[in-house]
Amino acid sequence: MKDLKEKVLKANLDLVKYGLVKFTWGNASEINRKEGLIVIKPSGVSYDAMTAEDMVVVDLKGNIIEGKYKPSSDLPTHLELYKAFDNIGGIVHTHSTYATSFAQACRGIVPFGTTHADYFYGEIPVTKPMTDNEIAGKYEENTGKVIARRFANINPVEVPSVLVCNHGPFSWGADSHQAVFHAVVLEEIAKMALNTIALGNKTPINQAILDKHYLRKHGANAYYGQF
Amino acid sequence: MKDLKEKVLKANLDLVKYGLVKFTWGNASEINRKEGLIVIKPSGVSYDAMTAEDMVVVDLKGNIIEGKYKPSSDLPTHLELYKAFDNIGGIVHTHSTYATSFAQACRGIVPFGTTHADYFYGEIPVTKPMTDNEIAGKYEENTGKVIARRFANINPVEVPSVLVCNHGPFSWGADSHQAVFHAVVLEEIAKMALNTIALGNKTPINQAILDKHYLRKHGANAYYGQF
Amino acid sequence: MKDLKEKVLKANLDLVKYGLVKFTWGNASEINRKEGLIVIKPSGVSYDAMTAEDMVVVDLKGNIIEGKYKPSSDLPTHLELYKAFDNIGGIVHTHSTYATSFAQACRGIVPFGTTHADYFYGEIPVTKPMTDNEIAGKYEENTGKVIARRFANINPVEVPSVLVCNHGPFSWGADSHQAVFHAVVLEEIAKMALNTIALGNKTPINQAILDKHYLRKHGANAYYGQF
Amino acid sequence: MKDLKEKVLKANLDLVKYGLVKFTWGNASEINRKEGLIVIKPSGVSYDAMTAEDMVVVDLKGNIIEGKYKPSSDLPTHLELYKAFDNIGGIVHTHSTYATSFAQACRGIVPFGTTHADYFYGEIPVTKPMTDNEIAGKYEENTGKVIARRFANINPVEVPSVLVCNHGPFSWGADSHQAVFHAVVLEEIAKMALNTIALGNKTPINQAILDKHYLRKHGANAYYGQF
Repeated sequence: MKDLKEKVLKANLDLVKYGLVKFTWGNASEINRKEGLIVIKPSGVSYDAMTAEDMVVVDLKGNIIEGKYKPSSDLPTHLELYKAFDNIGGIVHTHSTYATSFAQACRGIVPFGTTHADYFYGEIPVTKPMTDNEIAGKYEENTGKVIARRFANINPVEVPSVLVCNHGPFSWGADSHQAVFHAVVLEEIAKMALNTIALGNKTPINQAILDKHYLRKHGANAYYGQF
Repeated sequence: MKDLKEKVLKANLDLVKYGLVKFTWGNASEINRKEGLIVIKPSGVSYDAMTAEDMVVVDLKGNIIEGKYKPSSDLPTHLELYKAFDNIGGIVHTHSTYATSFAQACRGIVPFGTTHADYFYGEIPVTKPMTDNEIAGKYEENTGKVIARRFANINPVEVPSVLVCNHGPFSWGADSHQAVFHAVVLEEIAKMALNTIALGNKTPINQAILDKHYLRKHGANAYYGQF
Repeated sequence: MKDLKEKVLKANLDLVKYGLVKFTWGNASEINRKEGLIVIKPSGVSYDAMTAEDMVVVDLKGNIIEGKYKPSSDLPTHLELYKAFDNIGGIVHTHSTYATSFAQACRGIVPFGTTHADYFYGEIPVTKPMTDNEIAGKYEENTGKVIARRFANINPVEVPSVLVCNHGPFSWGADSHQAVFHAVVLEEIAKMALNTIALGNKTPINQAILDKHYLRKHGANAYYGQF
Repeated sequence: MKDLKEKVLKANLDLVKYGLVKFTWGNASEINRKEGLIVIKPSGVSYDAMTAEDMVVVDLKGNIIEGKYKPSSDLPTHLELYKAFDNIGGIVHTHSTYATSFAQACRGIVPFGTTHADYFYGEIPVTKPMTDNEIAGKYEENTGKVIARRFANINPVEVPSVLVCNHGPFSWGADSHQAVFHAVVLEEIAKMALNTIALGNKTPINQAILDKHYLRKHGANAYYGQF
């Protein structure tokens, strides 16, 4: 668990380094599937003094296994996502400026170009607005459920981010490091999408270019990088 | 008073550090309620060479008690706010880019998302345009009065910022440190609100989500952070 | 002249420091009125290696008095402005992003708020588009003449910047240091004005608030700063 | 070849330094015309640890002559451009934010001001959308062919950049260093053009001002800089 704590600490600090997180407005976690344990950032603790020892270890029911702090208040959302998406190993939540702006407009991000297609195989979806009951009840858990429902017909490995309506983005990946990577890509895509819309374009790229770019980086016939 | 001067100096320097202030375009103050004394930045002095000793101590009537410099020309606004809002301990004024853009459009910032709801329990209001008489008279004092009137039915602890129409933002908090914090949050909220409006959304979030996010951080049932 | 060269070098480097100039896209100069000599940046020389000795000294007719380099190709514009505006001592030209965007839209910047009013006593004007003859002839000199004509009824000390239509901003001041200061203020004002327009406001502030803010910093009854 | 590898490494690192490239989203190359050899960045290798030895040397048919890595997956585009444009020596591809936003809107950048005219003698063109066949076939090679076709009546030395519809910009120059320079200029021009359009201008500058600015820096009668 010590290595995983170091890794999750680094993921949290990377969110600050990449300019995605101000103050304590974000959190990263990673799961050890074999042991069924999750390491997550403590709640509301300043990034400046945070150490690997401050990370909190919980099980899939949210019971604290190790750690002197309370876990991030968004933990129940992370747990829902780990349960709903078998193939993911790390999750990141931020309030990054441009992705959050789309979330606030309750608007998904359609693929306008190949930067998007290189990492997201289709629209980055926005969830349905939560009902008053969902909000008043187990809000953070319900946030996870709303995301999971939105992905009923979407492969979370192919579309590793979501925008929660009125709230902000969640990103994920094979581990916490890749989840951070996807959060950075999402923020850049959101910024370019806002500009693209301002320039008058509302039409996504066609399926041929989406296939080409996504599949040259991912899947059996990928030929990008040093494989 | 020496500690308070150090604290107010730090608040002023933090405004520069967080990118909210260019040159001398801002000021921070804090009040010692027991002694009825306020520490505030001197007027038009460069931040580069500013020391704690340069801070000016005044009473609630604006009389200089300690200090070799004139106080910030916005002092009368600060005094009005300390008098009108019993529960605040620090005040900050900036011309930060996005909050000032809303002030220049004479437009309040409605809550478009949970980032807003986490710190502001409702719209960040804009004041009424000042009359020619208010401007020609005791302008800075009247600026404070106009703000106070705008908060007749708003709790300043729950909405710790205002936009002065045609001018810019004032933020406050329990002390000068928290006032700076609220000024930083306000600027980020303003930037995201501008983007949200550009994306076509004009509808604020509903009361349920506003309640949920504000109250999970504030008040009797708060469960965010390490309480 | 040695001190003036150091000062003009610093002004040119400050343009880079404040983010107003990329590569060699800017120039600053200052005049010694008594001797009728101007110190200006050399043309197309990299900022990285520039020294005070590289500055070029010219007279008001543009004759090189000292210096191993050719002066900035915009020198004739500077000369026209020094001749037309008796009371200015330093001039700066940049292609800073937001001020240039207004120049490209051939649109002046009306005062939308007190940040503007603190330093510019009215609209920052845009010149008339230059005629084909003015462009094909002594272009840089004519640029200066077009600016001077635009200020027929404007006091250049009260409005220390102009936008040249299709081109970019020129700013000036009592010396090169103040000219840089005004260029920085102009860029920030332009950015906020773009946002203000995006938020739907097209109405400038009224005369009372313009008077109040400009005159509390400038003129006989100024009370801002440590006078 | 050792010097050229160092130079191409530097060009690639400069793309990061100037903020045009995130992660591995860009590539720079340079050709030695005499030997018919091209040096290009390896595919998908992190910039942090990249050395000159990691650069890949290929011939004009794309055969690897030296290097332990696979070349950038965009190599076939570079090869097409080197073959189509005799007078260029270096090529750069980025996904820089603002240029890519125009590419995503499938919209060329008309000259709105002299910053543009100083380096680009006319509109920065956008390619035609690629057909499904062009995409499904030799995609990267066809990207090069689509660019070359778009320049049938444009001199690539006078207009050293293109926007590939739905994708992003390619820039070139006499060598890789100048290609990077043009990529930086393009990004700044794109940002200002977006603002200019937001301010309501859709009309390019006229031919007289385009001629004046381009020709004072380029060609037989240039008088800018220290020639």
